[in-house]
Amino acid sequence: MLGAAAAFTRPAKSLAPLPRRATAAPATVTMAGGKPLKVGIVGATGAVGAELIGVLEKRGFPCGDAGPTLFGSAGGKTVSTAKWGDLTTEAFSVAATAGFDVVFLAASGTFAEEHAFDIAAGLAKGGVVVDNSSALRYKDGVPLVVPEVNGDQCAGASVIANPNCTTAIALMALFPLFAAFGLRRVIMSTYQAASGAGAAGMAELREGVKVAAGDEDYVDKMGRFGEKTPVYDAFAHPLAFNVIPHIDVFQANGYTKEEMKVTWETRKILGFDPFPSDADDYSDGGPPRVSCTAVRIPTLRAHSEAITIETVKPCTPEQARAVLEGFPGLKVADDTANNVYPMPLTSTGSYDVEVGRIRRNDVFGDNGLDLFVCGDQLLRGAALNAVLIAEKACA
Amino acid sequence: MLGAAAAFTRPAKSLAPLPRRATAAPATVTMAGGKPLKVGIVGATGAVGAELIGVLEKRGFPCGDAGPTLFGSAGGKTVSTAKWGDLTTEAFSVAATAGFDVVFLAASGTFAEEHAFDIAAGLAKGGVVVDNSSALRYKDGVPLVVPEVNGDQCAGASVIANPNCTTAIALMALFPLFAAFGLRRVIMSTYQAASGAGAAGMAELREGVKVAAGDEDYVDKMGRFGEKTPVYDAFAHPLAFNVIPHIDVFQANGYTKEEMKVTWETRKILGFDPFPSDADDYSDGGPPRVSCTAVRIPTLRAHSEAITIETVKPCTPEQARAVLEGFPGLKVADDTANNVYPMPLTSTGSYDVEVGRIRRNDVFGDNGLDLFVCGDQLLRGAALNAVLIAEKACA
Repeated sequence: MLGAAAAFTRPAKSLAPLPRRATAAPATVTMAGGKPLKVGIVGATGAVGAELIGVLEKRGFPCGDAGPTLFGSAGGKTVSTAKWGDLTTEAFSVAATAGFDVVFLAASGTFAEEHAFDIAAGLAKGGVVVDNSSALRYKDGVPLVVPEVNGDQCAGASVIANPNCTTAIALMALFPLFAAFGLRRVIMSTYQAASGAGAAGMAELREGVKVAAGDEDYVDKMGRFGEKTPVYDAFAHPLAFNVIPHIDVFQANGYTKEEMKVTWETRKILGFDPFPSDADDYSDGGPPRVSCTAVRIPTLRAHSEAITIETVKPCTPEQARAVLEGFPGLKVADDTANNVYPMPLTSTGSYDVEVGRIRRNDVFGDNGLDLFVCGDQLLRGAALNAVLIAEKACA
Repeated sequence: MLGAAAAFTRPAKSLAPLPRRATAAPATVTMAGGKPLKVGIVGATGAVGAELIGVLEKRGFPCGDAGPTLFGSAGGKTVSTAKWGDLTTEAFSVAATAGFDVVFLAASGTFAEEHAFDIAAGLAKGGVVVDNSSALRYKDGVPLVVPEVNGDQCAGASVIANPNCTTAIALMALFPLFAAFGLRRVIMSTYQAASGAGAAGMAELREGVKVAAGDEDYVDKMGRFGEKTPVYDAFAHPLAFNVIPHIDVFQANGYTKEEMKVTWETRKILGFDPFPSDADDYSDGGPPRVSCTAVRIPTLRAHSEAITIETVKPCTPEQARAVLEGFPGLKVADDTANNVYPMPLTSTGSYDVEVGRIRRNDVFGDNGLDLFVCGDQLLRGAALNAVLIAEKACA
């Protein structure tokens, strides 16, 4: 029954796509004047770069007939696209981006610190750099944007930071609740996919589970690990059949940087100073207290998040659902009678973030709510959010 | 670099076993009088049954030269053991257990409701039935026991319930903190392995990932799911590369039964009425408020749990660590500088539950603490805990 060849196509009942609403912005973008923009992508051959090209294509972003200009660490690589044919990467220089309208950075934090403002200085009037690294996210004067939440901050900015993937996915569900009921406390545990470590992370997991599942010297029928261990390099330990509560580097307070990013970025995107301090006023209308446990699990590219919140005003699950239903870019997947809830299987590849398992949390009584959220790490967590930022900035 | 044959044995630095303390009870059990006991296992051919035999062997439980009597749904199956050679299962009847000293039930809740008390009535004087199902856990007069926590309740009981796996693993870390600082709130998110659905669940996951990782029609290089889906039956959806926030059946309040078990059983094991009610006094010394989000992930047999607590008395991470270090059956794995934290890779097959990532949770200030816990679902979550109960009951 479980032979290697046994398989069938996806059953209609449990896995048919749920009815979908339009995503955040129209599928075909109408930009100011309708004229083509000069678009560059730095880091075009990585996992995020590939998704950026795909999102620009699918949303009809006006890149001109020749498509975006791709910059790689070395030039001369060919990238195939559906819309613009084969594109060839160029070696990056600041000078090569002069006069561009939009430059997406899918490179390192060091790269962004070194080049983002120089690139911005040479852009066409009204042009924008959208940076996917964490280096500029907490700088004054650099908006940190989830377009559906604080897209108004794009106006006039020449460098905009794209948030941490976990934070961007969470905010899609947290912001409408914050706006309607206020947020006093947010406690999050994450289930993060290998794609957070890029294409190399996905390849390592894929190969690791294939090797481990096929040989009892790695893991036996009773699930015990053996003497052999899959090759690993992208993560601190082998990820196949494992759980690693460690993403990014540990801080002095015992949290990882990934966990603190969730705190810092949630605060900044909701309009508060990113860093908690003694000056914080936690009375109604103040910043939420946020904590996160960030955990890598053996999935490929959608992050899941279990979130418990305490709201300022009382909030029933029904009230929460009504607020979440109306929010663009978010899909309520919460029909437990039919086994519908957010999952990587249904949210991977989707522009919408899924939210479900909406229920009262008795620990916080009438102000307590539990949510489960799932979103594509490379789309809302990176490429889609970046393109939506560019659309807002160039509108 | 990531070829199918590429592999090496476990690197000494990151994966060498940590220094281990003795587990909860001595490795060789000394029972009253030292004479052999008549031991029966109902459901001996399942995943829990197999582990029960292994734990009885390894701990030198006095089963006599012929070993335990194995009962299966049908008789006549052969089970190989290291200590007692090949054992043959018998068809179960209550009469066949007459005069036994210990009968372990690794069967269904329906089976336990139908037979547990009848079996108990026919046991030798001082004999005990240890039931692994959830059916009897909330009954008055049936102790629900984690031996290191409330093992004193074994004395004189003829039917004892073995807790839910998630709860038993969590309690190993929560109880010492409860005893030292009191618990006001517990918020838990779980990362549960396929073994919770037995041997069939493990086989389904193992086969599913092997098939899916080896064929891009299931999941492509960019981590997108394709048209083909692995066979599934043990879970509500395919588990390979997926996350399923759904374990056991949904309740009217939006929680699953698995999630509510964590609330009910934590309360009962800590000495309170299992079911929350308006009569609860949440002042100091009252029951903790407990909530859980229970999530199935693609791992094989160790459960992980991210736990946030609010204590009654203020508690620093250092104070918590000192209390946890001394608790039998628990291992503090919390050396983040050397990438040491609880993981399935290190806790699978271990009698000890691992606890780590111990840090202050700012959401609850001086009374807030975060923990990450990992334990073997079939050992502390089932077979080991059951055998430890029998040792206490027959001591």
